[in-house]
Amino acid sequence: MTSVPDPATALLAAAGELDAADPLGSFVDEFEPAVGVDAYLDGNSLGRPVRGTADRISRFVAGEWGTGLIRSWDEGWMQLPFDLGDRIGRLALGAAGGQTVVADSTTVLLYKLVAAAIRGVPAGGRILIERGNFPTDRFVVEGLAEAHGLQVDWLDPDPIAGVTPAEVAAGLTDLTALVVLTHVDYRSGALADMAGITAVVHDAGALMLWDLCHSAGVVPMRLDEWGVDLAVGCSYKYLNGGPGAPAFAYVRAELQDRIEQPIQGWMGAADVFAMGPIYRPADGMRRLLSGTPPVVGMLPMQGMLDLLERAGIDAVREKSRTLTTLAIRAYDEVLAERGVDLLTPRDAARRGSHVLLGHPSFRAVTEQLWLDGVIPDFRGPQGIRIGLSPLSTTHAEAVRGILAIAAALPD
Amino acid sequence: MTSVPDPATALLAAAGELDAADPLGSFVDEFEPAVGVDAYLDGNSLGRPVRGTADRISRFVAGEWGTGLIRSWDEGWMQLPFDLGDRIGRLALGAAGGQTVVADSTTVLLYKLVAAAIRGVPAGGRILIERGNFPTDRFVVEGLAEAHGLQVDWLDPDPIAGVTPAEVAAGLTDLTALVVLTHVDYRSGALADMAGITAVVHDAGALMLWDLCHSAGVVPMRLDEWGVDLAVGCSYKYLNGGPGAPAFAYVRAELQDRIEQPIQGWMGAADVFAMGPIYRPADGMRRLLSGTPPVVGMLPMQGMLDLLERAGIDAVREKSRTLTTLAIRAYDEVLAERGVDLLTPRDAARRGSHVLLGHPSFRAVTEQLWLDGVIPDFRGPQGIRIGLSPLSTTHAEAVRGILAIAAALPD
Repeated sequence: MTSVPDPATALLAAAGELDAADPLGSFVDEFEPAVGVDAYLDGNSLGRPVRGTADRISRFVAGEWGTGLIRSWDEGWMQLPFDLGDRIGRLALGAAGGQTVVADSTTVLLYKLVAAAIRGVPAGGRILIERGNFPTDRFVVEGLAEAHGLQVDWLDPDPIAGVTPAEVAAGLTDLTALVVLTHVDYRSGALADMAGITAVVHDAGALMLWDLCHSAGVVPMRLDEWGVDLAVGCSYKYLNGGPGAPAFAYVRAELQDRIEQPIQGWMGAADVFAMGPIYRPADGMRRLLSGTPPVVGMLPMQGMLDLLERAGIDAVREKSRTLTTLAIRAYDEVLAERGVDLLTPRDAARRGSHVLLGHPSFRAVTEQLWLDGVIPDFRGPQGIRIGLSPLSTTHAEAVRGILAIAAALPD
Repeated sequence: MTSVPDPATALLAAAGELDAADPLGSFVDEFEPAVGVDAYLDGNSLGRPVRGTADRISRFVAGEWGTGLIRSWDEGWMQLPFDLGDRIGRLALGAAGGQTVVADSTTVLLYKLVAAAIRGVPAGGRILIERGNFPTDRFVVEGLAEAHGLQVDWLDPDPIAGVTPAEVAAGLTDLTALVVLTHVDYRSGALADMAGITAVVHDAGALMLWDLCHSAGVVPMRLDEWGVDLAVGCSYKYLNGGPGAPAFAYVRAELQDRIEQPIQGWMGAADVFAMGPIYRPADGMRRLLSGTPPVVGMLPMQGMLDLLERAGIDAVREKSRTLTTLAIRAYDEVLAERGVDLLTPRDAARRGSHVLLGHPSFRAVTEQLWLDGVIPDFRGPQGIRIGLSPLSTTHAEAVRGILAIAAALPD
């Protein structure tokens, strides 16, 4: 008779088997080593640097910038926001070329898209959003609604399951001009039914804007096929663009010449160097630009796009599923009995790539874990968010993280 | 009897003497070498990378980002926009701490400041700007004026001499709420009387917003002492922050809690991580922020701020004077007789650090010069702009540039 292994041993063994069989396993060596970090569980907040990022930037400083100097604007920099946007569109968004651009921050791009979408909507028109949305999304919508005399309607879905097409349908009115929702909830990780929700929004005659911050680069999507109108997303989470890297925006091709964003700058004008007397927006996605493209800030994400191209978004999604599934199994085996709550959908098809756990001790637990080289995200008032970026995270790392939480919990 | 040297020989000799006596001469070695570039004359459009920029970024990628990971937000990144802003304020703007922040692009910050300045101004109020202003400034002001029912009044000063306090005074009305002008004209290089103009604007009860893009880091100023209300500027010109580096904004301390900018994002909220239900702007300059600070994009400018700290802005200005003076002497000796126009003030105290020349052939001339490693800026319809960034440019380089223009002119 053999002894039954303790849960930690069994979990680490299961993780070892998954890692051994992982077709993407070799990708974890493609990232900069993090000295003293035993488990990085916050790839959904700040992705790790891809190996070679420093070399890429060094070559850029000596070459394109230091030697090409101002000539490099003609030789590629002007086109970079569109080239990178198209690449993100193709690899991560299911978007054909000419509909995605890299610029600004998520907040500024959200502002531009919401403002463009409600331009011309008469006072009394309505915008439907979710009360649990990320603050920037709510703040942008509320500010613009107030400035334009529009009303904000709020959805209050189940905080774990997230919003459904039926709930969205019930929240729509004849006056709803725009719906702004998040594809993967930044807290629960709930994955919204983008196709279904976009369809009910269109049935009501409104425009649909998706925030892709917690899904771009980890959850496959088909913006073109599903008829999404507008989207924004972040490049420093699963696209590993570095802290504060520029964001991206998507505008469906047919809409592009009908929308006008309010931050009228020289880079969005029809003829950038004409220095003409009147602002006329450029054709296509260039009209989304305002100031000079943030070239330096656009460099690091290129390494991750190379990896994503090699791995393929479907394989990334598959590993995301096994990572989050194993993390939830580990929760069940070592944290559930300790009074920790699971605040993420159990159905892998209904969640993104992070798992939210809740316990009153978690603020102090997170502080201790960070000192010990185990790095999840704390989300007040009492959440630990385990973000599992598939290309840079092993199953063993996910298990070590959960075990470390268990060890740090007060008795 | 000795022979009279030809103008080129005499100019190069004069340049050699100035370089030999230049107290800042050693700074030219502090920049990345530009292989094959004989004269870089566009430091006012894109400053050269400071030596060590690549190493700074490599250390950042491996350390703060790659190993510190998300922890680095707590350990400095959140504060970086304010620390860098204060440093720019102290070294370049004559601004005490707590009034300058680094963020976004010049266009986006202009939009925020103009919108904040006209918030609450009743329809019919007026904004005074200059017709020859940089397009982004005009586009932002026109867009916001139209959206808010305000009228734009235009100044048409002499295009070489630039705008005077008397012209501004004559353009002000009882309804003028805001004046937006550029400290150094992006074409002529004319340096406006910031103190005098700000005073007449205040006498009329309006707010004064200065665009410092072509003066920050090269022309000393005293924003605090002169009572400037608002200012924006660029960090990729004389602050050498790299292509598309984030911009900076200044808001006079007493105004900060009275203004509200419209791009309401989480980073500008009173409690960033409360994720609370309602947007309340943070105290002080944090309310100018919207999205996540562009940390990677803020790295390269730090090297130039180190150099500026060592050199001192007054010494930089003195070298700027000798550089532009020599360039104009060279123009007089080899270009004036060839039908080239000087479109920059001859009085060194009335110009910034660039010189504008005009000739119908200059588009083709610029194309040829770029191929030959002499790099000025072309400004349509027929201008060559010679930007002389004092720390990275020798007097000999300025002369070589003018001689190369002379050689490239059609007979």
